[in-house]
Amino acid sequence: MLTVKEAAEFLRLHDNYEILTHDYPDGDTLGSAYALCIALCSIGKRARIITTGLPKSFTFLTQGVEEQSFDADTIVCVDVADEKLLGCNADKYHGKIDLCIDHHSTNKVIAKNIIVDDSAAANCEIIYHILKELGIKITRPIANALYTGISTDTGCFKYSNTTPKTLRIAADIIEIGCDSVYINKLMFDTKSKAKLRLEKEIYENIRYCADGRCAIIYTTLEMQKKLGVSSDELEGLASIPRQIEGVSIGITMREKEGGFFKVSVRTNSKVINAADFCAKFGGGGHREASGCTVKGSLEEARQTLIEAVEEAL
Amino acid sequence: MLTVKEAAEFLRLHDNYEILTHDYPDGDTLGSAYALCIALCSIGKRARIITTGLPKSFTFLTQGVEEQSFDADTIVCVDVADEKLLGCNADKYHGKIDLCIDHHSTNKVIAKNIIVDDSAAANCEIIYHILKELGIKITRPIANALYTGISTDTGCFKYSNTTPKTLRIAADIIEIGCDSVYINKLMFDTKSKAKLRLEKEIYENIRYCADGRCAIIYTTLEMQKKLGVSSDELEGLASIPRQIEGVSIGITMREKEGGFFKVSVRTNSKVINAADFCAKFGGGGHREASGCTVKGSLEEARQTLIEAVEEAL
Repeated sequence: MLTVKEAAEFLRLHDNYEILTHDYPDGDTLGSAYALCIALCSIGKRARIITTGLPKSFTFLTQGVEEQSFDADTIVCVDVADEKLLGCNADKYHGKIDLCIDHHSTNKVIAKNIIVDDSAAANCEIIYHILKELGIKITRPIANALYTGISTDTGCFKYSNTTPKTLRIAADIIEIGCDSVYINKLMFDTKSKAKLRLEKEIYENIRYCADGRCAIIYTTLEMQKKLGVSSDELEGLASIPRQIEGVSIGITMREKEGGFFKVSVRTNSKVINAADFCAKFGGGGHREASGCTVKGSLEEARQTLIEAVEEAL
Repeated sequence: MLTVKEAAEFLRLHDNYEILTHDYPDGDTLGSAYALCIALCSIGKRARIITTGLPKSFTFLTQGVEEQSFDADTIVCVDVADEKLLGCNADKYHGKIDLCIDHHSTNKVIAKNIIVDDSAAANCEIIYHILKELGIKITRPIANALYTGISTDTGCFKYSNTTPKTLRIAADIIEIGCDSVYINKLMFDTKSKAKLRLEKEIYENIRYCADGRCAIIYTTLEMQKKLGVSSDELEGLASIPRQIEGVSIGITMREKEGGFFKVSVRTNSKVINAADFCAKFGGGGHREASGCTVKGSLEEARQTLIEAVEEAL
């Protein structure tokens, strides 16, 4: 396990980086990748990002990032807890990861060098410390990328993972100059009319189980199509079921192409550990926020989850 | 206008405090009042809070506060921008306010001593500085009260009023020891099933005007009764209409007993100033978040607001 200083030293000594994000990329993996990529380029290195997608709401992160053509020498993955989570890139990079920077306690990546700090609310906190150690000037695009990761992984400082350290890093980043107002509005306070219609439909179809201690919501491909909701707009639904009074485990099922559901689990960790729950389905994450996938039709997949909840509670 | 140091000195020299909150008290006026009350008692003063109500979700603030019987000598109001906002206490305290501590740029309170800092996202930021100046130990109940004010007035650090200073104060308060996880869950992540039903109904009845740049939502006493929603649960609705894509002014109308609506206005201040808008109806507040009341039936009051919006935009 590397220290922040050693991870910085590694980055100083190497070049020609490919930076990998996890599949279904979120704000923290993308924020980490963009912050690191822009920062490395600012000290004369070559770097590019390899991701399986870039949701529309995150395209602002690409500002000032230039496409570079070079042969990669150094593979870094950020916010990736397991090689499997590289998605369609998993096979290509199997056994080739030189540096893994992550904040998941469940990290299982086999890499030549690893830095994992599960006290960091967001992986971007670790990136921030590494960039400071490298003496890199935090420009506005870097600050925006870091702020995006930190704010999205903490629900804008609302979740239990938020620490004094998280808030102080955010304060520093905003002071340096970052578009936090714009990012907050985009990440947390913008809903299309289609999404409003979707939420109404979700509210109509909440399923409770385990005596009301579990609430399950879902979206299907058909609902998405009917209401004109883009896949990006399905992000952020996961907080809905856990909010309901009396609910200790909130489950959000999103149907994907290929006959399976992407499942987000949010829990009160004093009652049930979300990472353990998702591990049963080959997933993982944090104690209060984890994810996995479950195969089958809506009814089948939901029944599988209900049985697992009733066994776990 | 007093400095923080002078306000602290004032509090050190006086005793037997009555601390007034504004009407329809929110997290910041209550947080300010409880933090100040507990802090003054901790240095041997006598103090009590005078408020027109205490919503159920804020009752945790009263922990450790003892009822005290004494003749009041010193009247302080917190987070009160205008004497009118004292509600049913306005007449009784007219002309008798010794110290006004507030963060509204529109403050109009006539008091013997005033400290207003509109750079503070929450009035609790000013209270925090005054308590530090007084050398008062920030105990957990004080920290909880301060955190409640700061987090609620910033939408848990999401709104544009959040500054690096706000985040650093929050970091200090959490570090001292405060139940931020509990408070966040209670303030931002708890919804009763009745409230979910209410939101569904609200979503069905959104009215757009000014070419979609304004969205208006409402609740009526009848809806509240039908769905079993308490008045406390109507707090927090105000962020809904402003979130809708393309909306620069979001208006939330809540019917009150007595034939009028309490109106919350949230705006993109680059397009329209919420305080100016509400001033037309005798209300006020901040550039992006203000309030007022409008008389009449739902149709009448809404039409009045629509006309004002179309004139203003």
